[in-house]
Amino acid sequence: MFLTRTEYDRGVNTFSPEGRLFQVEYAIEAIKLGSTAIGLKTKEGVVLAVEKRITSPLLEPSSVEKIMEIDEHIGCAMSGLIADARTLVEHARVETQNHRFSYSEPMTVESTTQALCDLALRFGEGDEESMSRPFGVSLLIAGHDEHGPSLYYTDPSGTFWQCNAKAIGSGSEGADSSLQEQYNKDMTLQEAETVALKILRQVMEEKVTPNNVDIAKVAPNYHLYSPAEVEAVITRL
Amino acid sequence: MFLTRTEYDRGVNTFSPEGRLFQVEYAIEAIKLGSTAIGLKTKEGVVLAVEKRITSPLLEPSSVEKIMEIDEHIGCAMSGLIADARTLVEHARVETQNHRFSYSEPMTVESTTQALCDLALRFGEGDEESMSRPFGVSLLIAGHDEHGPSLYYTDPSGTFWQCNAKAIGSGSEGADSSLQEQYNKDMTLQEAETVALKILRQVMEEKVTPNNVDIAKVAPNYHLYSPAEVEAVITRL
Amino acid sequence: MFLTRTEYDRGVNTFSPEGRLFQVEYAIEAIKLGSTAIGLKTKEGVVLAVEKRITSPLLEPSSVEKIMEIDEHIGCAMSGLIADARTLVEHARVETQNHRFSYSEPMTVESTTQALCDLALRFGEGDEESMSRPFGVSLLIAGHDEHGPSLYYTDPSGTFWQCNAKAIGSGSEGADSSLQEQYNKDMTLQEAETVALKILRQVMEEKVTPNNVDIAKVAPNYHLYSPAEVEAVITRL
Amino acid sequence: MFLTRTEYDRGVNTFSPEGRLFQVEYAIEAIKLGSTAIGLKTKEGVVLAVEKRITSPLLEPSSVEKIMEIDEHIGCAMSGLIADARTLVEHARVETQNHRFSYSEPMTVESTTQALCDLALRFGEGDEESMSRPFGVSLLIAGHDEHGPSLYYTDPSGTFWQCNAKAIGSGSEGADSSLQEQYNKDMTLQEAETVALKILRQVMEEKVTPNNVDIAKVAPNYHLYSPAEVEAVITRL
Amino acid sequence: MFLTRTEYDRGVNTFSPEGRLFQVEYAIEAIKLGSTAIGLKTKEGVVLAVEKRITSPLLEPSSVEKIMEIDEHIGCAMSGLIADARTLVEHARVETQNHRFSYSEPMTVESTTQALCDLALRFGEGDEESMSRPFGVSLLIAGHDEHGPSLYYTDPSGTFWQCNAKAIGSGSEGADSSLQEQYNKDMTLQEAETVALKILRQVMEEKVTPNNVDIAKVAPNYHLYSPAEVEAVITRL
Amino acid sequence: MFLTRTEYDRGVNTFSPEGRLFQVEYAIEAIKLGSTAIGLKTKEGVVLAVEKRITSPLLEPSSVEKIMEIDEHIGCAMSGLIADARTLVEHARVETQNHRFSYSEPMTVESTTQALCDLALRFGEGDEESMSRPFGVSLLIAGHDEHGPSLYYTDPSGTFWQCNAKAIGSGSEGADSSLQEQYNKDMTLQEAETVALKILRQVMEEKVTPNNVDIAKVAPNYHLYSPAEVEAVITRL
Amino acid sequence: MFLTRTEYDRGVNTFSPEGRLFQVEYAIEAIKLGSTAIGLKTKEGVVLAVEKRITSPLLEPSSVEKIMEIDEHIGCAMSGLIADARTLVEHARVETQNHRFSYSEPMTVESTTQALCDLALRFGEGDEESMSRPFGVSLLIAGHDEHGPSLYYTDPSGTFWQCNAKAIGSGSEGADSSLQEQYNKDMTLQEAETVALKILRQVMEEKVTPNNVDIAKVAPNYHLYSPAEVEAVITRL
Repeated sequence: MFLTRTEYDRGVNTFSPEGRLFQVEYAIEAIKLGSTAIGLKTKEGVVLAVEKRITSPLLEPSSVEKIMEIDEHIGCAMSGLIADARTLVEHARVETQNHRFSYSEPMTVESTTQALCDLALRFGEGDEESMSRPFGVSLLIAGHDEHGPSLYYTDPSGTFWQCNAKAIGSGSEGADSSLQEQYNKDMTLQEAETVALKILRQVMEEKVTPNNVDIAKVAPNYHLYSPAEVEAVITRL
Repeated sequence: MFLTRTEYDRGVNTFSPEGRLFQVEYAIEAIKLGSTAIGLKTKEGVVLAVEKRITSPLLEPSSVEKIMEIDEHIGCAMSGLIADARTLVEHARVETQNHRFSYSEPMTVESTTQALCDLALRFGEGDEESMSRPFGVSLLIAGHDEHGPSLYYTDPSGTFWQCNAKAIGSGSEGADSSLQEQYNKDMTLQEAETVALKILRQVMEEKVTPNNVDIAKVAPNYHLYSPAEVEAVITRL
Repeated sequence: MFLTRTEYDRGVNTFSPEGRLFQVEYAIEAIKLGSTAIGLKTKEGVVLAVEKRITSPLLEPSSVEKIMEIDEHIGCAMSGLIADARTLVEHARVETQNHRFSYSEPMTVESTTQALCDLALRFGEGDEESMSRPFGVSLLIAGHDEHGPSLYYTDPSGTFWQCNAKAIGSGSEGADSSLQEQYNKDMTLQEAETVALKILRQVMEEKVTPNNVDIAKVAPNYHLYSPAEVEAVITRL
Repeated sequence: MFLTRTEYDRGVNTFSPEGRLFQVEYAIEAIKLGSTAIGLKTKEGVVLAVEKRITSPLLEPSSVEKIMEIDEHIGCAMSGLIADARTLVEHARVETQNHRFSYSEPMTVESTTQALCDLALRFGEGDEESMSRPFGVSLLIAGHDEHGPSLYYTDPSGTFWQCNAKAIGSGSEGADSSLQEQYNKDMTLQEAETVALKILRQVMEEKVTPNNVDIAKVAPNYHLYSPAEVEAVITRL
Repeated sequence: MFLTRTEYDRGVNTFSPEGRLFQVEYAIEAIKLGSTAIGLKTKEGVVLAVEKRITSPLLEPSSVEKIMEIDEHIGCAMSGLIADARTLVEHARVETQNHRFSYSEPMTVESTTQALCDLALRFGEGDEESMSRPFGVSLLIAGHDEHGPSLYYTDPSGTFWQCNAKAIGSGSEGADSSLQEQYNKDMTLQEAETVALKILRQVMEEKVTPNNVDIAKVAPNYHLYSPAEVEAVITRL
Repeated sequence: MFLTRTEYDRGVNTFSPEGRLFQVEYAIEAIKLGSTAIGLKTKEGVVLAVEKRITSPLLEPSSVEKIMEIDEHIGCAMSGLIADARTLVEHARVETQNHRFSYSEPMTVESTTQALCDLALRFGEGDEESMSRPFGVSLLIAGHDEHGPSLYYTDPSGTFWQCNAKAIGSGSEGADSSLQEQYNKDMTLQEAETVALKILRQVMEEKVTPNNVDIAKVAPNYHLYSPAEVEAVITRL
Repeated sequence: MFLTRTEYDRGVNTFSPEGRLFQVEYAIEAIKLGSTAIGLKTKEGVVLAVEKRITSPLLEPSSVEKIMEIDEHIGCAMSGLIADARTLVEHARVETQNHRFSYSEPMTVESTTQALCDLALRFGEGDEESMSRPFGVSLLIAGHDEHGPSLYYTDPSGTFWQCNAKAIGSGSEGADSSLQEQYNKDMTLQEAETVALKILRQVMEEKVTPNNVDIAKVAPNYHLYSPAEVEAVITRL
């Protein structure tokens, strides 16, 4: 019947007859329009790399932040609506700070991820912290805690998975299969940097420069690469 | 009349002219898309076994949690929306902890199940703890209390039943009839492990490995099997 | 005009042009799908009997509770949505406990019934205790107080009636006419047990066993029959 | 235009283009489906008489309450949704009790009626005491205060009128014209009883018995007739 | 476009494309169905006269109140929904009493009128004192304060005007033109009484009697005429 | 597509696909139906003049207030819904009084205008002070503060502009072009009075009299002209 | 399907099936109708220039404020709905003042921009500070803090970017390409003034005068140019 889909979308958080949540599925579409981000976990630490779309030469490349620090031992790369991601990251920063204050120890990466997903899950509930729609963003959360390095992937439904390597955004499909071919658990952090950038280069439509990619690592602390450090990785390609 | 079904869904928690609650029925559809989970009660304790769908070799199998601990004497297997299940489990953990704190004794398995279902029933009510839609998840709750081992099955309507054995998820229909043939009340816990995995193998489309199934028991405490322990059961098949 | 019925349902608690409340009428439909329950009042006390639909041999029959204790002098049988009935019964238990605590005497059966119906009437009001839709359940409330034994029947509109005998659920039509033929005010409690089960047998599609019926009496205290006690009644048929 | 009526009903408390409030008019329809009730004012006091529809011989006639006490000097007869009437009467009981407590004197009949109508008027307002729809009930309020006996008639719009005699419910049209012929201000209370029952007999489709009518008087205190007292009036017909 | 009007009415307090507020206009229609009321201001005081529709000889004429006292120096005549008018008058009574209590002096007629209109204006706002729809009533407010006698006319939009003479209700059109012919500022109060009743007689379809009209004056205090006083005016016609 | 406009209006404060806010535009239509008002700023002070539509000779002209005092140094002329304007003016009066009380100095004309527009902007927000629809009124705010005389013009969107001269209401188009021809910054207050009335005469369909126009000035205090003072200006025309 | 777009707009903050947020896109349309604004960052400071549309010669040009001070080290130029911009600026002023009060130091330009965007992002959430629709305005935020001069650009989605130069409003497309040709990082502030006005002249349809443009700089403090200062820049063209 032709009215079906349009009818079921009105409630933002309602099941369709097939048991689907359309608003979440549409939010996932928003991410497929986003720039590509890649994460790889090594024994030394985790590497995050993102494509930055600089739409105008007058834009300050460093202000297009697609990798952000959550706590000194956790960072994340994002794809989708940047303003939504900022809200989630800000929420996570408060949570990790509160945890340090209350327990005098860093929050684990999994707890941080769970806190982010709890907020994401409760869209449309009308309480103060939540949004009236799903957050239109996926995150790759890289961290290092008592269990060693870890990499988590979250989607707009509030679900998360632990991964060894993962790509999100418009180029994620191709990037994910390249990762399956090129990733192995025993690669060094430096090899991971190279693989990340090599794969990013494949999905980007322009030449890779320190202006249009960002790289960060958590090993064991979060560090965003300077343009010179990015340049160094590019040179290795 | 062609508008009938679409019209009645708008209110998430409203009866249709035939006395049906469509949102609950649609949520049940969501579970039919989920991975299969099986529970069996023996005199020694309860066994839970689940299929894990590992969509990518880069995913960390242990992060796909489909069996979770609620309290040291209660665990549950789930099928449907994992983020919803996490919310229910988190709610149950708080309830059981509060109960231990207030009464210095563990909460019974039935009270824990009732607490979970109370939350599930009140969707669309707008109060703080409930969701704006039904929880899209079914649980198999395994526990051990003063009444011995018990196994409960809950659905999105907030109804629960006590069972000797039960399967949920996409393969539940076939698995349930296999259970009726193969289950008997006097089987040992070890026999229950074997039966659970044998049935799971039938409904899964790939070879059973420690990576794509999880097993747990409550006998009398919750214990999630290590890969080696799972491997041991697989070997017995 | 073809839009009429669908239009008026949107407000869950709104009159139609003919002065009808459709959501209440639809909830009553939900009960017509439920299992059959029967109550009979005698001078010695009240008997309740229900059909239990055991959909799988692996289900624990005792966990399918269709007769529940409200207070030591009040019990009820239900037909319709079990999760809704549990909420009503839980509400009534709190009310009767509060009454005992405040007045050091049991709540009368009529006051208990009124308290249940007050909650049922206020659906769609948005206050904390009420539901956003009518409760999809009918109850037969059996009790014994200073006025002797009594039997009440409630429906989803929040209306209640005192009866000598009453059947609810899918087989209620046939059961009610059998009751009119077979019931008389001077029958003994034992005769009432036999009549209840005889009528239940007529409306059930399978052989009556201690597994698929439950019997309880309030005479003057609530007592749910053990399987052996049910077996004894069956033998008398 | 064919959509007109259905469109305007959605807001429960909204004017139609002709300046009408449809939900109130539909609630008035609900009363036209109700059983008939009659009130007559004499100098000695007020008489109320109602038809009781006993749908089953197993129903307890005394539990079908269509005449209820509000305070010792006020009673009311009702037609329409009984559960709604109970809510209004309960509200009025609290008001009259509060008044006695605060002022050490009974509330006047007019103030009591006004309090009932204030609650009825505010449907759809969302505050705690009001309903989300009009109350589907009309009341005949009989009382006796410092101004002597009085009889009020209320409708679902929250409007009230003082009357000498009035009939409500499905037989009200015929009953009202009979009242105009047979009522006079100087009749005795006994004559009023006879007239009330004679008119009720005309509109009822079955023989009048103490089981299917109720009579009450306020003269000056509320008194519901026992079956024997009703039988005495029937004998006089 | 044929949907235009029906669409814009849904929000009770929303502009149409032509800058109109339909719910207010529909409420004004409700008044055109009401009984006629007339007010005339003289130097001695203000006269109010209303038609009372006595639908049944069994109705108590004095209980059909269409002229009500607000404070001892202010009264009002009404046309439209009587229950709405009672709410407005009750609100004004509280306001004038509060004013007397706080300032030890009577509230001016204009301030009283403004207070009434503030309440009328805020319909659909959801706050505690306001209605969810416009008040379906027009008032003629007669008063006497430090500025001498005054007569105000209010409509459902919350607007008010000061008048020398004004008619409202179903006969207002004819009555207003008669007033323009017959009214002059220097007429005595007695002449005003006669003119009011003469005009009322024209628009009523039955003979004028003390039963079907009410007269009141504010000169300088509010006084509702007894049947004998009304009879005296009728005799003068 | 024919549904477009009607669809987008439902949310009172929502953008259309072209980036328009229809409810604000419709409110502006309401003003085009209003009576004409004119303001002119001179070095000596500001003149406001309005047309008053006296629909009946029985209406008290002085009660049709279209120019109102806000504070002793600020007044305003209005066009559109008078009841809405009264709410805005009342809000501004409270604000200016509070400012005097807190800072012991008059509020500036711009701050007063901003306070009015803040209230106007937030329609549909659901908070206590705001309306559920835009205010259907435009104001010409004339004032005198430490910066000398000033004239502001506000519209229903909550936007304001400072002007030398401005006309609002149904005749504003013609009046504005006349103002552009006849206004100059160096005219005296008396010349401004004459120009205002001359232009008003052009757009009114009847003879100008002290009954159907009002004039006020702020120079430096607010003063509403008496009928004699208005007559004097008319004579000068 | 023809209903698609109209359907999805009803929820102001809901994803469409393609993952789009239409209300935000429509708000962006509102800005395309706005007047043009330009910002350029130099090493000496930032220059802002805006077109002012003076629709009538009687309007006070200085009251058309399109460049506003936020704090002494931050200013902003705006395009779109001016009343919305005023709300955002007022919010930012409070934030920067609070920051100065709490930390005794100025808020950084990025934090100020983030605070503005947090408010913009949360439209439709129903909390006190947010709007029920997106803010229909874009801002160019110019500031100077410990990191030197900076220029930020915000859009209605709550996203912001740091730029070297940027144009917004109806002429932004042409202006942006001119900026790319003419801007370089090493230009002086005076050169930036000239470039800004030269480009503004291209997109405006009338002669540039001190009446129809405004210029401001933050170097390091906010300064709005006097007409004479603007005239001086015009002369340099």
